[in-house]
Amino acid sequence: MTFKADSVGLVTAKSVHFDAPFKVSCGRELPSLDIVYETYGKLNSDCSNAVLVCHALSGDHHAAGYHSESDKKPGWWDNYIGPGKAIDTDLFFVVSLNNIGGCGGSTGPSSINPMTNEPWGPDFPVLRVRDWVESQRLLTDYLGIGQWAAVIGGSLGGMQAMRWSLEYPDRIQHCVVIASALKLTAQNIAFNNTSRTAISSDPDFHDGRYYQHAVIPKRGLAIARMIGHITYLSDGVMGEKFGRELRSGSFDQGSESAVEFQVESYLHHQADIFSQIFDANTYMLMTKALDYFDLAREYNDNPVSAFRNASCKFLVVSFSSDWRFSPQRSEDIVQALIGAERAVTYVEIDAPLGHDSFLLPVKRYNKVFTAYMRQVFNQLACVAEKSEVNQHAS
Amino acid sequence: MTFKADSVGLVTAKSVHFDAPFKVSCGRELPSLDIVYETYGKLNSDCSNAVLVCHALSGDHHAAGYHSESDKKPGWWDNYIGPGKAIDTDLFFVVSLNNIGGCGGSTGPSSINPMTNEPWGPDFPVLRVRDWVESQRLLTDYLGIGQWAAVIGGSLGGMQAMRWSLEYPDRIQHCVVIASALKLTAQNIAFNNTSRTAISSDPDFHDGRYYQHAVIPKRGLAIARMIGHITYLSDGVMGEKFGRELRSGSFDQGSESAVEFQVESYLHHQADIFSQIFDANTYMLMTKALDYFDLAREYNDNPVSAFRNASCKFLVVSFSSDWRFSPQRSEDIVQALIGAERAVTYVEIDAPLGHDSFLLPVKRYNKVFTAYMRQVFNQLACVAEKSEVNQHAS
Repeated sequence: MTFKADSVGLVTAKSVHFDAPFKVSCGRELPSLDIVYETYGKLNSDCSNAVLVCHALSGDHHAAGYHSESDKKPGWWDNYIGPGKAIDTDLFFVVSLNNIGGCGGSTGPSSINPMTNEPWGPDFPVLRVRDWVESQRLLTDYLGIGQWAAVIGGSLGGMQAMRWSLEYPDRIQHCVVIASALKLTAQNIAFNNTSRTAISSDPDFHDGRYYQHAVIPKRGLAIARMIGHITYLSDGVMGEKFGRELRSGSFDQGSESAVEFQVESYLHHQADIFSQIFDANTYMLMTKALDYFDLAREYNDNPVSAFRNASCKFLVVSFSSDWRFSPQRSEDIVQALIGAERAVTYVEIDAPLGHDSFLLPVKRYNKVFTAYMRQVFNQLACVAEKSEVNQHAS
Repeated sequence: MTFKADSVGLVTAKSVHFDAPFKVSCGRELPSLDIVYETYGKLNSDCSNAVLVCHALSGDHHAAGYHSESDKKPGWWDNYIGPGKAIDTDLFFVVSLNNIGGCGGSTGPSSINPMTNEPWGPDFPVLRVRDWVESQRLLTDYLGIGQWAAVIGGSLGGMQAMRWSLEYPDRIQHCVVIASALKLTAQNIAFNNTSRTAISSDPDFHDGRYYQHAVIPKRGLAIARMIGHITYLSDGVMGEKFGRELRSGSFDQGSESAVEFQVESYLHHQADIFSQIFDANTYMLMTKALDYFDLAREYNDNPVSAFRNASCKFLVVSFSSDWRFSPQRSEDIVQALIGAERAVTYVEIDAPLGHDSFLLPVKRYNKVFTAYMRQVFNQLACVAEKSEVNQHAS
């Protein structure tokens, strides 16, 4: 099998072990960290072309390309990472990691707690977005990257990108925040809580110690995924995709055959797959990190004050039909950036696909994203040339 | 305790037994029917002032007033039924019933199936909105009401009102359809299916035969109710009501205390109460009736053709922030009524409370509803006067 010319092709995950204790914002410590990551493209000689991709709730390190020739699906952001794509691997060295707390191989609830020799489970420390930034910073140092050309993320990933801009202003040139928010709304928290309740209500959850019982809380996780799926799509696109078409049964009067709508069987199929591969404790942890995130909390609840600590440039993107992270939430970000007198480009993309638009091929989004990333690269080239000039001059 | 002047005060539920087999649209039969209902106000001498109130998913016959002096909460539509209220009990004789399939005393899944002497449970026939109209017609005859001055309902209740206008055009003068739709969208079906999956995944559900196990699927029903609550409110009103306020815990760094948001504890509280009083099989049945409803299915999918069978006048009301039954869905109804050249008054009420607005005190909604119902009454008076005049003349 050959891959398409704009694919990064076969990729292999790498892993790095950090032996030092990792202090978590809740006050506890992890004795050590494993971080699994992938890279696409080549790091240039002055290490200036590195880009960090941060994943969202159900993502992982596998953002682009294929793990084997028989892989049916590429990484989760393959639409936007590859040769000639928005995050152009001919130009950039792209790093994508599985966040700690995840279930893609990095240290998380399903890892062994060396103190007990059992999986961490519910004893894994509660994580904040800032803990991910801190663990990503370790990886940054390990890879020898002084400054990211850009830190990029959608949804929960956008929250990490924003936090980077405040925690390490000198180490990030551009911050790309897609379909994200300064903090979740009460409705968002309510949906996340309902998902967590579905998981914790599943008798197979065993208070998070299901590993020891050799079961997984499949039913609860499936319900959580169904809620996710519905809220990440728009009413409109679900209507277009499924309408009221039936998968089986009939509405004939006098007929008792059980009716199943297409949308029902689709949801169940997606939820079944997910519930078999994703870790329930990770789902609990990730949704809590989402709920707890509030960019301006430590800045007197003033996002303008928060962004005064940033020195990078920003691209903010929202999608018209995204009702989970609505354009209004992106406008809040932009408003705060303007208040803090930071350079910001904002685009609301007219797209019918809801929150999931950030993952899917959307023409105008692709154009804007590509154009912005070209600028990021051109500015790098400038800096490099300038530094060369300076070197010649000195 | 004395009740407010605009309350119908103490009310008592009545019950009627219909001994004849009741044929259900799915082809099966119920051997007999019990229907529990309440009435408010007085039927006038020519039986022309009767109004039927149809309930929605979680409603029942208790629409107004109190069952005892110690009752803390009145019936579910007490905001709009009472002396001087929109459905003015000084003018109208109001009938409110528990639909069959319900759990308020009418024949439903928790009733005893005389063939087995066990509760019907999952063997209770699948019901359509038209079956409710048919059972309501039995009650209509029993009460000696030839024609309803109005059939009124919100949400699923509005679907019943519309079906009345087609099935018994001569027996309904006005049809009041509030926050309803000609049929559900794929998104609505998906939410309902997720709720049903939560219930059927609960090990205490026992395929609907939980009565025999002396348990109730509390956890599943609670999750279903949480989904309902979130989707019946708007993002905006949840934000205003709860914001990101904490019920317990703290976000202090270095603190590991478990955080609970106000919105989480509110949802859990509501869900706990509901899951102890509502029957899970009824929830399954009612949400299926919602999903299956499609006013125009038997009219070549043409709602204009459907409404050509109606001869009553219509009031259609929607609420700006209702995203579960959006104003667009009410406009679909209005569009079809205009196409069928039927008299229709349409108002979209600017209200922040989401779908639940139809139950809650909203000033402009109250004014419109009251004004319309006054017209309904004045037209009755006209007819009565005219018939008197005619009698004198003959």
